[in-house]
Amino acid sequence: MDSQTPFTFSSRANQITSSAIREILKVTTRPEIISFAGGLPSADGFPVAELRQAFDVVLEKQGKVALQYGPTEGYGPLREWVAQHKSTDGVTISPNEVLIVSGSQQALDMLGKLFIDPGSKVLVESPSYLGALQSFSMYDPDYVAIETDEGGLIPSEVSSDKAAGARFIYALPNFQNPTGRTLNAQRRQELVERCAAANIPVVEDDPYGELRYAGTPQPSLLHLGRKAGATVIHLGTFSKVLAPGLRLGYIVAPTAIIDKLVQIKQATDLHSSTVTQMAIYEAIKNNFLEQHLPTVRELYKRQCQYMLDAMAEHFPEGVKWTKPEGGMFLWASLPEHMDAQKLLAKAIERHVAFVPGEPFYATGNAKHNTFRLSFVTVSEARIREGIAILGQLIREEM
Amino acid sequence: MDSQTPFTFSSRANQITSSAIREILKVTTRPEIISFAGGLPSADGFPVAELRQAFDVVLEKQGKVALQYGPTEGYGPLREWVAQHKSTDGVTISPNEVLIVSGSQQALDMLGKLFIDPGSKVLVESPSYLGALQSFSMYDPDYVAIETDEGGLIPSEVSSDKAAGARFIYALPNFQNPTGRTLNAQRRQELVERCAAANIPVVEDDPYGELRYAGTPQPSLLHLGRKAGATVIHLGTFSKVLAPGLRLGYIVAPTAIIDKLVQIKQATDLHSSTVTQMAIYEAIKNNFLEQHLPTVRELYKRQCQYMLDAMAEHFPEGVKWTKPEGGMFLWASLPEHMDAQKLLAKAIERHVAFVPGEPFYATGNAKHNTFRLSFVTVSEARIREGIAILGQLIREEM
Repeated sequence: MDSQTPFTFSSRANQITSSAIREILKVTTRPEIISFAGGLPSADGFPVAELRQAFDVVLEKQGKVALQYGPTEGYGPLREWVAQHKSTDGVTISPNEVLIVSGSQQALDMLGKLFIDPGSKVLVESPSYLGALQSFSMYDPDYVAIETDEGGLIPSEVSSDKAAGARFIYALPNFQNPTGRTLNAQRRQELVERCAAANIPVVEDDPYGELRYAGTPQPSLLHLGRKAGATVIHLGTFSKVLAPGLRLGYIVAPTAIIDKLVQIKQATDLHSSTVTQMAIYEAIKNNFLEQHLPTVRELYKRQCQYMLDAMAEHFPEGVKWTKPEGGMFLWASLPEHMDAQKLLAKAIERHVAFVPGEPFYATGNAKHNTFRLSFVTVSEARIREGIAILGQLIREEM
Repeated sequence: MDSQTPFTFSSRANQITSSAIREILKVTTRPEIISFAGGLPSADGFPVAELRQAFDVVLEKQGKVALQYGPTEGYGPLREWVAQHKSTDGVTISPNEVLIVSGSQQALDMLGKLFIDPGSKVLVESPSYLGALQSFSMYDPDYVAIETDEGGLIPSEVSSDKAAGARFIYALPNFQNPTGRTLNAQRRQELVERCAAANIPVVEDDPYGELRYAGTPQPSLLHLGRKAGATVIHLGTFSKVLAPGLRLGYIVAPTAIIDKLVQIKQATDLHSSTVTQMAIYEAIKNNFLEQHLPTVRELYKRQCQYMLDAMAEHFPEGVKWTKPEGGMFLWASLPEHMDAQKLLAKAIERHVAFVPGEPFYATGNAKHNTFRLSFVTVSEARIREGIAILGQLIREEM
């Protein structure tokens, strides 16, 4: 800050720059833009009537409790629900191993607070989720890139050299943001074994795990890790299975970690909304998700197929893309000499938006020919129109 | 951590210890305990029916918007409401100067992120709000105590020496937590003038400002500061005027600060709950608070009087206490040779709880004879019973 400014920000705050995605998303709120940039779930999948009913029942029957301060750990029955929901494959999770948080993004911030000192080594997939990089960066870590290929994170990349002294590894094994890739069971097993041997916790971020619409479900790192003696911190959210505007998620981890996170959460925001926690529990307590999720999966599967079909029709040879088995995103690669940032500038002139790959790379090793496409927010017709325009622009540049 | 532990916490996390208040509050959840410890607003003051109606209307009419991701800055109409609500005394606040947050506690955490580097000087009242000290301490500041007297913060304590290089001063001018004291207009004016001259921002935490039930309203530091050229960051909350289980509050500050806080909030939890923001706006948009607040004030005034009456009857000479004009707390001082921590140990055996003064002092200059009493959660009969027991225990120790 210059000497005229009547305040001095922390060095942390001075380092934050408005993210590339944030700037793009500002443009994409204009209604004429066909945006494949955002990560907004389709509102068609929100169970509006059921949530309306749930808020009403909670405020009618337990209004004074629902509007009062609550425990920092979260609403007891919801913690129990999460514990039960995550207890499978011979692994039992206790409610004491569950902390309710204000969305997965808050979990990421709190993990930064818990684990990262300035210069702490943190292993991240290359590329990785931009929102996580933003949260962790507040605490000034030293990122180490774990390379990925078509099968996602390459476990042998977690070498004893890279792992030595690392505070944790951050991984998204299911339909990764940004690539849409999924780790197979063998890679998962090798990953948790390597982390157990190296004594580093695995943060398993799993916002999309329930949104699988193709292929075979894979065991979670949480379960494999418990059996292999690895410390796994599992992050889940109600944003994709119910609705993101509720801002609720959860952390499953050993009690020594949960207990410390509870102290951190108390200093961060006391606790997450009582009424929202109670309404979510009311909505899902009688197996509502079992009825609801097939609808969401079917919706997302259709949306994904619209985009894959349009890309097959309109994208020229030399462009590659992933075929996700779930989630919201796919990842395209232009021929290596091309730059997705330049493509974006032209695309926005034609009212189409996406996110170039560069900000997803933590360590400056970006592949500038890559970009992320979200297929869940835009209608079939607009997907076809937008992809056709991108195809045309790519051809012009090749 | 010992070498067997499969994870290494940040030094920040290792420094957190379970707070004294937290340990006390655990005891006080037992139903037989008469607790003057907590800061829970009386649930009798919650507008349950109105909020139930508001959630219902929002989810009926705008369900898909209410359940979707929203802007990090907050729901537009609610920002406008706050801006209008805070525009008085010839000072106009723009909606761009408002950020919606998940309760005041989150505002404190975000201000820590924004301003505090390890060792940064931060001025705090002595004593001050424990929750703020916990939030700021995550960022490792160097606290400087600003002494207080019966009239609250002593402005001349904000000397050029103490202020030099400070990142901000944190003050609660109305019915301060923990003391219940209020700063008069003259002290407020002197405070903002000194801060303007020293070029340090004032954080005005004002959770209880609307809960004045005696005396004369005082001008806010926000308004005085704008006129005096001081940078004021004003924190407000819906926890006390509506209900704390909603977890919503707001920050009013110059746009240069709000813009940076928006970037910080994005990395912290993306945004606060869309549905809750819309429901609050729905509940209050037609001047509901003007009808509702007199009821809450009347309730708190009565509760305060019950406690003051009981103290006058049961506390021996030599014990002093504040007479709040609003808010939820009062502050008692035993004779100087006595220790409130020892009194608490005996009181808990007799099923009465309160918070000793020590944790409210940031710099180790605690007055061990002081303690905080909350009068808003407990019934009249239980207030009389609990205060009689405390009076008896104090007499026994004198």
